[in-house]
Formats: sequence, C-alpha cells, structure tokens
Amino acid sequence: MTFYMFNLNSLTMTNKLKSMFKNVKVIAILLLLNSFGINAQNKIPIYLDDKKPIDERVEDALARMTTDEKIAMIHAQSKFSSPGVKRLGIPENWMTDGPHGIRTEVKWDEWDQAGWTNDSCIAFPALTALSATWNKELASLYGKSLGEEARYRNKNVLLGPGVNIYRSPLNGRNFEYMGEDPFLTSKMVVPYIKGVQSIGVAACVKHFALNNQETNRNSVNVIVDDRALYEIYLPAFKAAVQEGDAWAIMGSYNKYKGQQCCHNEFLLNDILRGEWGFKGVVVSDWGGVHDTKQAIHNGLDMEFGSWTNGLSWGTSNAYDNYFLAKPYSEMIKKGEVGTKELDEKVRRILRLSFLTNMDKNRPFGSFGTEEHAKAGLKIAEEGIVLLQNNNNILPINLSKTKKIVVIGENAIKMMTVGGGSSSLKARYEITPLEGLKKRIGNQAEIVYARGYVGDPTSNYNGVVAKVSLEDKRSAAELTAEALKVAKDADIILFIGGLNKSDNQDAEGTDRKDLGLPYNQDKLISELAKVNKNIVFVNISGNAVAMPWVKEVPGIVQGWFLGTEAGNALANVLVGDVNPSGKLTFTFPVKLSDNGAHALGEFPGGDEVKYNESIFVGYRWADKQKAKPLFSFGHGLSYTTFEYGKVTADKKQISANDQITFSVKVKNTGSREGSEIVQLYISDLKSSLPRPIKELKGFEKISLKAREEKTVNFTIDKTALSFFDDKKHDWVAEPGAFEAIVGASSTDIKSKVIFSLQ
Amino acid sequence: MTFYMFNLNSLTMTNKLKSMFKNVKVIAILLLLNSFGINAQNKIPIYLDDKKPIDERVEDALARMTTDEKIAMIHAQSKFSSPGVKRLGIPENWMTDGPHGIRTEVKWDEWDQAGWTNDSCIAFPALTALSATWNKELASLYGKSLGEEARYRNKNVLLGPGVNIYRSPLNGRNFEYMGEDPFLTSKMVVPYIKGVQSIGVAACVKHFALNNQETNRNSVNVIVDDRALYEIYLPAFKAAVQEGDAWAIMGSYNKYKGQQCCHNEFLLNDILRGEWGFKGVVVSDWGGVHDTKQAIHNGLDMEFGSWTNGLSWGTSNAYDNYFLAKPYSEMIKKGEVGTKELDEKVRRILRLSFLTNMDKNRPFGSFGTEEHAKAGLKIAEEGIVLLQNNNNILPINLSKTKKIVVIGENAIKMMTVGGGSSSLKARYEITPLEGLKKRIGNQAEIVYARGYVGDPTSNYNGVVAKVSLEDKRSAAELTAEALKVAKDADIILFIGGLNKSDNQDAEGTDRKDLGLPYNQDKLISELAKVNKNIVFVNISGNAVAMPWVKEVPGIVQGWFLGTEAGNALANVLVGDVNPSGKLTFTFPVKLSDNGAHALGEFPGGDEVKYNESIFVGYRWADKQKAKPLFSFGHGLSYTTFEYGKVTADKKQISANDQITFSVKVKNTGSREGSEIVQLYISDLKSSLPRPIKELKGFEKISLKAREEKTVNFTIDKTALSFFDDKKHDWVAEPGAFEAIVGASSTDIKSKVIFSLQ
Repeated sequence: MTFYMFNLNSLTMTNKLKSMFKNVKVIAILLLLNSFGINAQNKIPIYLDDKKPIDERVEDALARMTTDEKIAMIHAQSKFSSPGVKRLGIPENWMTDGPHGIRTEVKWDEWDQAGWTNDSCIAFPALTALSATWNKELASLYGKSLGEEARYRNKNVLLGPGVNIYRSPLNGRNFEYMGEDPFLTSKMVVPYIKGVQSIGVAACVKHFALNNQETNRNSVNVIVDDRALYEIYLPAFKAAVQEGDAWAIMGSYNKYKGQQCCHNEFLLNDILRGEWGFKGVVVSDWGGVHDTKQAIHNGLDMEFGSWTNGLSWGTSNAYDNYFLAKPYSEMIKKGEVGTKELDEKVRRILRLSFLTNMDKNRPFGSFGTEEHAKAGLKIAEEGIVLLQNNNNILPINLSKTKKIVVIGENAIKMMTVGGGSSSLKARYEITPLEGLKKRIGNQAEIVYARGYVGDPTSNYNGVVAKVSLEDKRSAAELTAEALKVAKDADIILFIGGLNKSDNQDAEGTDRKDLGLPYNQDKLISELAKVNKNIVFVNISGNAVAMPWVKEVPGIVQGWFLGTEAGNALANVLVGDVNPSGKLTFTFPVKLSDNGAHALGEFPGGDEVKYNESIFVGYRWADKQKAKPLFSFGHGLSYTTFEYGKVTADKKQISANDQITFSVKVKNTGSREGSEIVQLYISDLKSSLPRPIKELKGFEKISLKAREEKTVNFTIDKTALSFFDDKKHDWVAEPGAFEAIVGASSTDIKSKVIFSLQ
Repeated sequence: MTFYMFNLNSLTMTNKLKSMFKNVKVIAILLLLNSFGINAQNKIPIYLDDKKPIDERVEDALARMTTDEKIAMIHAQSKFSSPGVKRLGIPENWMTDGPHGIRTEVKWDEWDQAGWTNDSCIAFPALTALSATWNKELASLYGKSLGEEARYRNKNVLLGPGVNIYRSPLNGRNFEYMGEDPFLTSKMVVPYIKGVQSIGVAACVKHFALNNQETNRNSVNVIVDDRALYEIYLPAFKAAVQEGDAWAIMGSYNKYKGQQCCHNEFLLNDILRGEWGFKGVVVSDWGGVHDTKQAIHNGLDMEFGSWTNGLSWGTSNAYDNYFLAKPYSEMIKKGEVGTKELDEKVRRILRLSFLTNMDKNRPFGSFGTEEHAKAGLKIAEEGIVLLQNNNNILPINLSKTKKIVVIGENAIKMMTVGGGSSSLKARYEITPLEGLKKRIGNQAEIVYARGYVGDPTSNYNGVVAKVSLEDKRSAAELTAEALKVAKDADIILFIGGLNKSDNQDAEGTDRKDLGLPYNQDKLISELAKVNKNIVFVNISGNAVAMPWVKEVPGIVQGWFLGTEAGNALANVLVGDVNPSGKLTFTFPVKLSDNGAHALGEFPGGDEVKYNESIFVGYRWADKQKAKPLFSFGHGLSYTTFEYGKVTADKKQISANDQITFSVKVKNTGSREGSEIVQLYISDLKSSLPRPIKELKGFEKISLKAREEKTVNFTIDKTALSFFDDKKHDWVAEPGAFEAIVGASSTDIKSKVIFSLQ
C-alpha cells in the first residue's frame, strides 16, 4: 500500500525556472503513473492507436477485458444504451430509433420521454416515400442527413433502415419499409446505409428476417420455402451487408424454423455470417431475446429491451436478469459454456466502437437543421406519386381557381407522432392544410371541413399529437358541412387515408381490412355527386381500396412525409414540383388480389405459411392476371413521355458476359419532368416456376420539355438467376429471356429477346 | 422550391461498373449538396479545421452564427447543459459538479437524480484533504483522474476546483476549498487544473470571488480592502488563470462593491480580464445572475440555474426567461445594446468548445476505475494529518493489541453523500469501521459502539446515505454502552467530528459554533476517565474546538476522504502508511482567536466587513500571539526529522535577482517518512502593515531512516512583495527580510536575514 516517490519539485518564481519546472513535473508525474502500474515508456496502447489495423486493435482491447466487462457489454444497461469499458475508455454504445428521424430521449429505464428540450428532430419522410422516389442519390442524402442527426445527439447506432418486404397491405408496419420488390429495396438501402455510416454512425438494418406482419409478431413461426426466402425476403439484407457494409443488423421478433429470429442458427449463423460473411453486430429487437443458450450460440451479439423495471440506485438491477447477463455468466462459471462465443460477440462490438464512437475523425453531425429539412422536403416532393389525373385536374391552376375546399382529417393531423418506435418529437411539422395555406396565400380562398370523425389525437408513450381542430360535432354534422362547402368549390382536395393509430399504419398491430377507415369511402362518393372536381390525397404507408376510383379524377399518394409534409404536398398540388414518384408496391383492387390473402395465409396463427412463395406483389398479380388498382412502378407526371423501342447490344451472352439494353425516352409535354424507366427480365423457359417478370433495372431521368435521352441498362447473369432450392445456389439457366422496358409493371413499352448460352 | 438535378445513375451489376458507379454517385451527391447551397469545392470549413489557429476558427464559426444561436449559447437549456450550434455541428456544453467527483445525472430540469445506473463515480478526497498533502504531483494526479472521469461521462466542463480562502472555521463550505493560505492554494490549484485540462475537459475555477461564507451568500455584500483582496483572496484565482491556464471560471453568489459577483465590473472586467488577461469563459454560479444589463456588460459569458420550472414538450421554455435569453435579445432588437458583447461571449464559448468537446485528439477518459480509486487512496493517505501523538499511541501496535474499541457515528457514516453540490453517487465508499475491520481482520477484536445520537442519515436531493447502524437507543444508553466496552480496550478510536448535514460541513449553511456536535466533547472526556488510550479521529473539513485536548493522547485529522476513506484511515492508524499531511488552516483554540470572529465580522448581515484585512489564519494568530490549538502547517509523522540551519547563497539581492535558501533535513527516526519543509518570509520593516510572516515556499521530501537531504528554496522579489493599495500595484520595498524555515507556522527551525537592494 505504501508509496514512495522522489519529489522533484522546487520552489520556482522565475520564468526560466518555471519552464524547467514543467519538465521536472512531467518526469515526476510519469514516475507517479508508473508506480500505479502504467508503463510510461509504452506509447499509446494498440487499441487506442488508430494507425493500427482494426482487427489488431480489437484483439488488444479484448485481451485487456475481464469476463464481467465482456458480459456487461453484450446487453443493455438502459432502454437504449449498453456499457463500454469504463476502465479502458471504451465508450458506451447508444442506440436510437429510428428509420425516419432521431427519437426523443427517454428515461433511463422507461419508455416515457425524459423531458429534454434539445431533442426535437427533423422528421424525414417514411421509407415508403423514400423508396417511391426510386432515386439512389436521395437515399444517400437521407442516410447522410439522418446520420448527422444521430451523431449530433451522440448516438452511434441508428436503428434503421427497415427493409422487410411488403407481403400484405395489412401489415401495420409497411410504412417503415421500402415496398414489395427485392431489387428496388436492395438498390435503395445501400446508399442509405453508406450515407448514415459516412458520419461514423452504424446503420442497424432491420428486421432480420421474415417480419412481414405485426399480428403475433413475437411468436409467429414463418413457414417459407427457400426460393421465396432467398429471392424475395433476403436480397435487401444481403445487399445491405455485402454492398452497403452495414455495421449492424437487428434480429426480428418472429420465429423461423421454430427458432426466434434474434437467436436463429439458420438465419444468423448459416446465412448472415456463413454465406454472407457479415462481420458486424447482431442486435436484438427490443424484447426479442427468449433463451440464453440460443442467444449464446446462435449469432446474437447484443440484447436489448428484455425487461423493464423501475430502477433506482441501490435496488437490484433488472438488466442483470437479461438472458445475456447473469444467466450467461453463471453458465460460464459452471463450465456449461466456454468463453469463445463471448469473445466473438465482444470482438464485433469493439469493432463497432472503433468504427463509430472511437473514430476520432468522424464529423460532429448536425441536428434539426434547415439543411436537413430541405433534404426531407426534396425527398418528400420526389416521393409523392400522382396515381390518377383525369382531365388534368392537377396541377391546380391558381389563375382559374377561386375556392379550394380541403376536406379530411389528415389535412390537419400530425403524422410524425404515433405508429410505434418510429414516432418522433419533430422540431415542426407542416400539415397539408398549413402547407396549402402558406403556398396559396390569398391567391384563392381555402375552406376547410373535417368531413368525418376520425381519431382526434395520436398518442405514443404519453406524447399526444396536436390536432388543430378538436371538433365535438357528430359524423352527420361534419358530413353535412363538407357537402355544403364543397358544392361551389373549384376544386376539392380530400386529404384522407390512414393514420398512425392502432390497426392502421402502426407498429404492433395490423390493419383489419383494405378499406379506408371512418367511412371515408361514403363521404368521397357523396362529395363526387355534388362536385366532380375532386382530388383524393391518400396519406398512408399502405395500399387502400378505392371503390370510388372512377368517380374521382385526381388521386395522389401522399405517404407520411415528415416535417415538411404540407409544403411538399402543396408544391406538387399547385405544380411547383412536377411529380416523379412511382409506387413501390401494388395497390390491389381487393384483398384477394394479393397472394397471401388469396391463399388465406395472412396473418396465420402460431405459424404463418408463405404459400404464395415467390409470387409477392406484382409477381402475383402478373401470374394471376389480376389487374391492380394501381400497379407496382406506376406514377404519372404533369408532362408526358414517349418511349422508343428497346434494343440490345447483342443477341446472346455467355455466363461471364454482360448485355446492354437501350431505350430512348422523350419528354413530349411542355414542361420539365422526371421519368423512372424500368427494366424487367422475363425468363421464357425455366426448370422451376418463375415470375412472369422481375425488376432488374431502373433509371430516373430528368428531361426538359421536348428533350430526349437514351437510357442504358447493363446486366449480367445475376439478373437472370433464380435460387435453386435443391442446389441451394443461384442458377442462371441457359435459354431465352426477354428484356421488358416499362413505365410501370403493367405499362409495358417494348421488349427484346436475348439468350444466355 | 423546385429543384433540378441530373441523375447520373445507371444500372450496374458488375464490379467494374460498380466502381465506376461509386464515382458517379459521389459526383451526383456533390451536385445535390451544391444545390443546397453548400459549395462542394470548398474543403473542410475553417472552424472545423484543427490545423488552423484557434482564433481563426472562432471567427469563422462566429461569422456563421445567427443572433438567436448566439443568444442560445450563452445560457442554459437544462440544469447542466447549454446549447451548441446544431446546424454547424458545434456540440452542446455539458457541465458537471464537482470538485471531488463527477456528479450523478440529474433530470433535465430538476435537481432529482435521473435514475441512470452508469454514473457511479469514484469519490475523491475533499480538496481540504488534497491540500493537506502539500503535494503538487498529487494535485496533478487528482485533476487528471477527475478529468478522465468527466470525459468518459461526456462532460466538457468540470465545476471545480474551489479555491476560496478559509476565513472562518464556520464557513460550511470550507471542506471544498484548500485552506487559508493564498500561496499554498495557488501552488496546488495549478497542477489540478492542468491535470483536468490535459484530458480535454475545462476546469471551472470557483467561486470568483470573496465567497467565504454560506450565510446570506446570495445577497451579502463583501467589504474588503484592496490589500486583502489582492494578497489573500485573489492570488489562487490569478495563478489558476495565468499559470494554470484555466479555461473557465465561475462567478460567486455574493456581492462585491454592491454588485453581484457573477456580473461584476470590478472583478470580471477590471481584474480578471483587464489585469490578468483571462481568455476563458465566465460561468455563473447556478442562480447567481440577477440582472440582464449587468450580465451583458460585466464579463459574464454563460448563465446557469436561474430558474427551475417543470418543462415538457409544448409548454413554454423557462430557460427563455433567463437574464441572458429573451430579455437580452429583446434589448438587441430594441437597439438598447449592440451585439459586440454578445459576440465576445460567444467567441469565448467557441474557444472553450475547440479546446474540449471539439478537440478530436483528447483522450476518451475512464470512469469509476480501480486506477482512480487507487489515486484517491494515495491522496487520502497523504492528506491525513497526525495532529497529536503523545506517548506514541499511534500507530496501533497490532502485536500488543487485543481489543480495539471504535466509537462514534462517523466510523459508519457515508460521507460522500450530502454537503450540497459536491454530493456524489459513489461506486462504493469504505467507511472507517469497514476499513479497520478489513485491515485488522482477526489480528485484534474490534468492538463498535456508536456512543452518541447524531444524524442517522444524510440526505441530498432525495438520496439517502446509508448508515450501517440504525439505532433507536437514547443518548444515555449509547453513552453507557460506549463507556462499558471502552474500559478494557487496548485502544479507543473515537471517530467523530462533523458530517455533511446542514450547519456542519455543508453548502448553503454555516456552522453555528466551533464545537463538536452531538455532545461528543462530553463523551470524549468521560471516555478518557475510564481509559486513557484514546485516539480522536476528526472527520471534518473544518477546525473544531477540542477542550479535552490534554486528556486525549492521539488526535488525527481525517477529512472527508471519499471512496477509499476507511482504507486510507486504517492504513495510517496501523502504520502501513506513515502520515505526512499537514494542516492548511489554523485550528484556533476558540472562535475569538480567529480574526473575523475576534472583530465580530462574521457572518455579517446585508454586508460583511473583512476588517481583519490581510490578517487571515496564521497571519492573525501570529499578529495576536494567539497560540493555536494546532497551527497552520502542523502535522506529525511516525518518524522524527531534524533540521539544520538555513543558509542563504547571498546576503542581498537586487530587484531582478534570485536568492536561494538551503536547509538540511534528516530523518532521525527508524522508519521512512515524508516531511513538508516550509519557507516563510518576514518583511522586517515596511511602509504598510504586513503579516509577521508569510508562506513563500514548501517542499515535501521523502527520507529513509537516517537519510538526510538538502532542501533548496529559490525566490525572487515576488516573494517579498505586498500589494500597495495606493499605487494599485505589487511593491517589494528595499530593506531587510527574514527567511524562516519551519516544520509548521509555529514550529520554527531557523532563520536567516537578507536584504533587497
């Protein structure tokens, strides 16, 4: 215990002596530190030396850690954080929801907000809106902006993006994902991830895998064949890992092959790490861990959200009860398991730290900024889809419009609050009505009538979304008022759809049917009888049925657009912005036009059978020849485009060859606009059933009035392959294929045949 | 609002094309960013370029900021944080109490703990204990360790150290300071600051200035002459600024010249910035701001703690009501004040950020570590002062001791909780009884008797300190028990003193008298009658009266020693550690032996007159020839030291010269020990009254048994100077001086006369 040291100090009063003293002091301090066991002759330890290879740093840090420190690191210490190594200066890991903006601070061990006032974020458009832009640069901008917001808030893991495939329009969480097509989702997720991670924040891609419904999500066992698994449900995750280099992935709540996906040997060990070589961290969904032994062996690295108990200093720590906490360390103590798996988990988490909160060169980020709001606005504007525009009812011609009647609760409803873990405390949210009023000013009269009784508020963890109008009138009164004011309107903007309440677009529940809630259908039809100039703006993250589709000339898909929602919508509706989004999922006419529902396999019970297999979305519609209400890839513009005939640069290719298809696209209208040109491939003959066609390329081009561009698509055999479940490999079978160019999955412009040798 | 961009994407399936695509994407993103107003051709902005000079970076950042952002930056947003610039990636500033350890997380806008579980710190010994080591290396180690703890917790400003001078033993906050001598405090504070700041955490030296009592602290106007101000109360602050390069300083609650010290033109503008050239940030004490106009003009940079209102999202923000919030911006809008002062404040805060949370090269810190606990132990061991050791009652000879009786509540009382803002949530705290039991084990029987009724608990902001014994017995019963068990003890360790409750050693109140509370005096005297082998261990940060001093052979000053308190005390009591601390303030026999009290000038009412002027502490005792109970600089060892005669290397010096005094010190005992050799200077004749002598040098040397060392003190005219209030300058008057070497301020070993030409 005793401690001896030469005291080298001396009384110093002059500058000369002062400078000498400085050196003396340094020596003295080094001697002192030395006596505490720190070798002053060593330079910076390897794990802190960012000139050393990351693997070397990981091994060095790991070698310094105790078993207790390792165990602590692999499970939560609070709702959203896990310990670092206090002793070694390895920081804590702080996670944040979510995919659309940085969640507000919550209390240490409760979901309630902590009441901070520095955490009002920019709410970005939901990922359904991002994917509808079909614009990879915007996905990059989205990711970068969100990464900057996370970084400024000192979060090093962003819990997003979500890339689960849109299997049924009833999945309450579809709004957080990127549609029904694995190719499109793959192409959009990669730049998102790279954008986030360019800021030194890990993207945590979720929910891996097969989490395609909220009903029974914690228990349902998904039965899916390998072809659908590999061709439909996994490609976006694979792209995230292999092309996006995602540093983290989140396990899903459901089961696959009877095992919870957060500790699933097939998904995590065999596929993610085995086949794909994933080096990142597997994080559980909150409460997704159910078994210590499986969690040890089946690929999970970090456990979150398993228990919630009010904690206070001095009481026992509920986090010690986590599956990867004491139960694990006790198994180690008893010799029931070694420390190899623990070391592997910790290695991955250390690597995550070196890439994020220990990367001294990462930028500082920024939060709630105008720049981010502008990025969100741009994404929102490009994501809005003009579904129907009969008689060119849009854009609103303000020179000829005196009275605009806005009807519907979603015109005034905050949509950034609610819906589950993606709920945000936004710095501000422009509602559609606000956006219209701001844009139109006194150029026309704007009359608002709510029209129906919906949810007056959204509520999520104690935060109540503001609804401007707290209306106590009955549905009949509201309808009467709407019909009355609508009669002499030059245009009616019916801003309805779904909201973030349970059984609509919300985590934790699924929708009950395809229809619009709150008798909107009836009101729309009645309005159409008194005034035909109706535009229906569907605020939703899901397809809805539109039995009145022929009665309403204008239909716009308005998504959940975040902070700048109302501005983006107004800009499109008045024509400042020419719409250029296209659908990333099919709007079926009726639920039975969807494969899962046609086969009666949604939502299942203890298990759900994906009997439609690979025939998801347009693949099902194509196969069944079921004409959708609106097709995958569909979206109109205020201008028109003319497609030339697609050509190929060769007639056949070998397995290692490439082939390029070209098509001329001309803007034949009078204003600038963007078109999303789509390439589908059809395998004309194959040994296994294949979809009629599959998206294998897309290009969004901007064309000035009368301008023409040539769009080239280059593919190789990857685009021709299917997953052969017997060979357990991707196979491109020689034979004839068709390259199909379209403006949507049903608006086919031309085709060209080629063959694979 | 519209936004056009060339989309350069193309479908890419091959690696070759992929790498091309990467470049294309980069270009596309740059184009995109460009269109948002960011010039992609510019490299990193100057303010983010750490190769640029800091002043240039400050100007660049300042030029980018709006007035609102500037206003936001100069006042709190929560209990302990203030905004950065979200838009520019300039992080928030997070402050933390306090001088002895990193305070637990509190709620956003409430003093209550936030219930985090990652914030159990190492509690270091109180600064009174640190100063009693007289060891600058330990001050450096203390600062560095505390800086590391703050850094790991993501705090960039540490609210400490406190260097207010010990004017009266009744000041409730003396325990947080470093004693009565300006020279000693100056020498100790500099390495502390450098240690903290070496980790990229700002030290915020407090409380500037003249905050020498807690009674009426928010309103009392201090009347002090310039000589006392400059010679006694300011030197430690000046050293902190000029030698320590402190990046921040905290204004005090009280008034000086009728102005609140947090916005005091004399202290902040004239002295701190004018005379001393301070470039750092002036932070208010929490709630120390009272006037917008003064806060604008009189040197304050950051306002904290002015209001507390429960805030929640959507309600009005109480922080907008801060004196430097809306009231300031409204004055700017009305043209009542320009923005020059605002810019100056923001410049200083930006500089703080560049030095701390924007210094990418600062280390990551560490928290609650064994290394820090060891540092705390070492400081505690060296800080303990052996005040009296008649008959060599200490160290406890375990080979001859069968029964040790421990008496007193402080043997079992947690002292890291309570006392005000320095209250901590320590990772652990070893009480004296625990430390003794651990050290002594079964080498002797240890019997504990509480002996008196004190405070069963300490409470601070809802945290109740654990007291091992919750005893419901009466004082008489406890006394009887203590007397009974004490009779046949080989040694009685009476571990008493003060505690962290109000009117003892606690912020916000002062003590009511010099005596020990809870009738400890009576119990000690009674014990001494039944068994003379008593050691009194005084746990306190203040002097106490000891009317029984001749009845008790052993007296130890035990301070508040933090996490390792009990271990440190046990190590000293059993002799594993040879005590080497010395008092840094005078223990008067009675209150009237202290200048402030002798003159009836404590605590005053609306104002307090420092009529004792420069005669504080031993300066008063010397002048009055009042023999202290224990003198400044006093402290014994388990060995003995013999001093030779002090010699000077010359007989006279010129104004630019130096003089060196040498004295041999020999360890004449049989064990190794450290001695603090003190140099005092006496001005034998001066035009203004001067203290009999003043400390101007000290050296702590370690000597093995029989070892001798020569200690040299080199001084220049600075050590001979006094502050001439008429000239408003430091003056060294030619004439005769005496260099006095002593083992304490009253244990003078030898003197030598010299003269200044």
